[in-house]
Amino acid sequence: MRCVILGGAGFLGRHAGRAMSAAGYEVWSVDLTAIEPAGSANWLAGEIQADCFDLSAWWDRCGGAIDVVVHLASSTVPATANADPVLDSQTNLVGTLSLLRAMRDKAGRGRLLFASSGGAVYGRPQAVPLAENHPTLPMGAYGVTKLAIEHHLRIEESLHGLSYRVLRLSNPYGEWQMPHGIQGVIAVFAYRALHRIPLEVWGDGSVVRDFVHAADVGRAFAAAANYEGAARVFNIGGGEGHSVNHIISTLEQLLGREIERRILPARPFDPPVNVLDIQRAKDELHWRPAMAFEEGVAKALEWLRGVP
Amino acid sequence: MRCVILGGAGFLGRHAGRAMSAAGYEVWSVDLTAIEPAGSANWLAGEIQADCFDLSAWWDRCGGAIDVVVHLASSTVPATANADPVLDSQTNLVGTLSLLRAMRDKAGRGRLLFASSGGAVYGRPQAVPLAENHPTLPMGAYGVTKLAIEHHLRIEESLHGLSYRVLRLSNPYGEWQMPHGIQGVIAVFAYRALHRIPLEVWGDGSVVRDFVHAADVGRAFAAAANYEGAARVFNIGGGEGHSVNHIISTLEQLLGREIERRILPARPFDPPVNVLDIQRAKDELHWRPAMAFEEGVAKALEWLRGVP
Repeated sequence: MRCVILGGAGFLGRHAGRAMSAAGYEVWSVDLTAIEPAGSANWLAGEIQADCFDLSAWWDRCGGAIDVVVHLASSTVPATANADPVLDSQTNLVGTLSLLRAMRDKAGRGRLLFASSGGAVYGRPQAVPLAENHPTLPMGAYGVTKLAIEHHLRIEESLHGLSYRVLRLSNPYGEWQMPHGIQGVIAVFAYRALHRIPLEVWGDGSVVRDFVHAADVGRAFAAAANYEGAARVFNIGGGEGHSVNHIISTLEQLLGREIERRILPARPFDPPVNVLDIQRAKDELHWRPAMAFEEGVAKALEWLRGVP
Repeated sequence: MRCVILGGAGFLGRHAGRAMSAAGYEVWSVDLTAIEPAGSANWLAGEIQADCFDLSAWWDRCGGAIDVVVHLASSTVPATANADPVLDSQTNLVGTLSLLRAMRDKAGRGRLLFASSGGAVYGRPQAVPLAENHPTLPMGAYGVTKLAIEHHLRIEESLHGLSYRVLRLSNPYGEWQMPHGIQGVIAVFAYRALHRIPLEVWGDGSVVRDFVHAADVGRAFAAAANYEGAARVFNIGGGEGHSVNHIISTLEQLLGREIERRILPARPFDPPVNVLDIQRAKDELHWRPAMAFEEGVAKALEWLRGVP
């Protein structure tokens, strides 16, 4: 069985690739970026540097007859999508639609697994934890695009028989998540704590979010790859919430010292609690997060010791 | 007060323009297509042949300082959107996002009124009549694009202060709706009946749909233009459903003769009843459909007598 990871050089792509390999797949990575350091993703059958949305650039080079495509490709994160919604729609939405059209013509096109965002598609929580049937009122362009792609996948199935599943991820964290970006609070905090740079905390640190270790996300993709039940959309989260203060105290415990923080004004648009209900994934995929939070943070911290 | 109708040469654009003119606006039409016959839309201050999504091509030529933009521009109808979802997203969604970005820079950019589709954004009715808080699970690409634009409008308001309202239209009909297309059952049936071409009826004709005369749609845009309440999205429908058989019997009564029909197999994907709940528009916009169904069909029929 063959699996292609679109965005395989990225943080989540590496975890998904490793999990799919462990599940017995021959795994290929397609990504604009080369995997660094070269050879570090030793579970891969091969890596192709190409535009993920241009199927003709990679399908045959991966050997064709692909059983599973894990779609993690995105040119944006929530902040950059809001800064340029035209580009976000153009690349990610139109790009995905081009991909779906190109896949239609492929015999044995296999199943598409799409990484959506539980944090982005629901919008402000009306009830916590958020189940998959919670209203979808995205608060940013990133979520609108993710949601539009979900709808198009459903339609592509009904009109053209695509096999697909959607995983709505909470906040993934773990090894290979780079700490220099504008998202990934655990990576950013852990890196700053290691380098004794004060953490920036918005408000009193009581805001609760859902974190899921990327290894668990990888296992969820593997579970969704051969799930034959009726559900199409699954929340994939850590199963419980953690406050910003709890992240910091976890890091303090791991480092054995206090961490300096700078308190900034609370942001009124931050919902106080945002946690996904993962009961459906437990029931249907027989998946549940296996990584304890403290263990996951410890792994991320250890990995970050090697990041300059 | 100045109003620009994007798509002003089309069926709905003409009705919206006339209604906005009656409401006291100086009304401009922007459309790729010229208004035909020339001069027939005598309520217009002017007409500009340009790409609606390219604001720089029309904003200043309409005199700038535009109070209301009525966005009726669409390059697709439901069937053509499904046939080419890439083009649909590319033109209508990305185009509208470009328009929103260009409007941000315009002082006094006014209010945007967007024509969405009640028939397309909700998907299969879970309860009838459909209220605005019904889940949105579009069954086609056309509805996904409409819905994504609605979400982007909400976000554009929250991030950049856009003033907007959305009208989710049911099935508009009336004068200027061309009978040669693939939608607009009343126009198609009336034209065929006039020319003694058998009507094609899918199933037993019991399917019930919501029809709203385009003159009433025009009045709804005028009402939404200066509505200052909290609601953002309004269903605009006829307030009651009519079966396909009732359309035919109405035409038979108006023509004073029997109309031949060809019975085709029922289409399993057609929901038996689809009617919008228009209570919010009644309460908030103080709007209600004024055109009786029989009168509206009679007007459409009379107009079609002049269509070759």
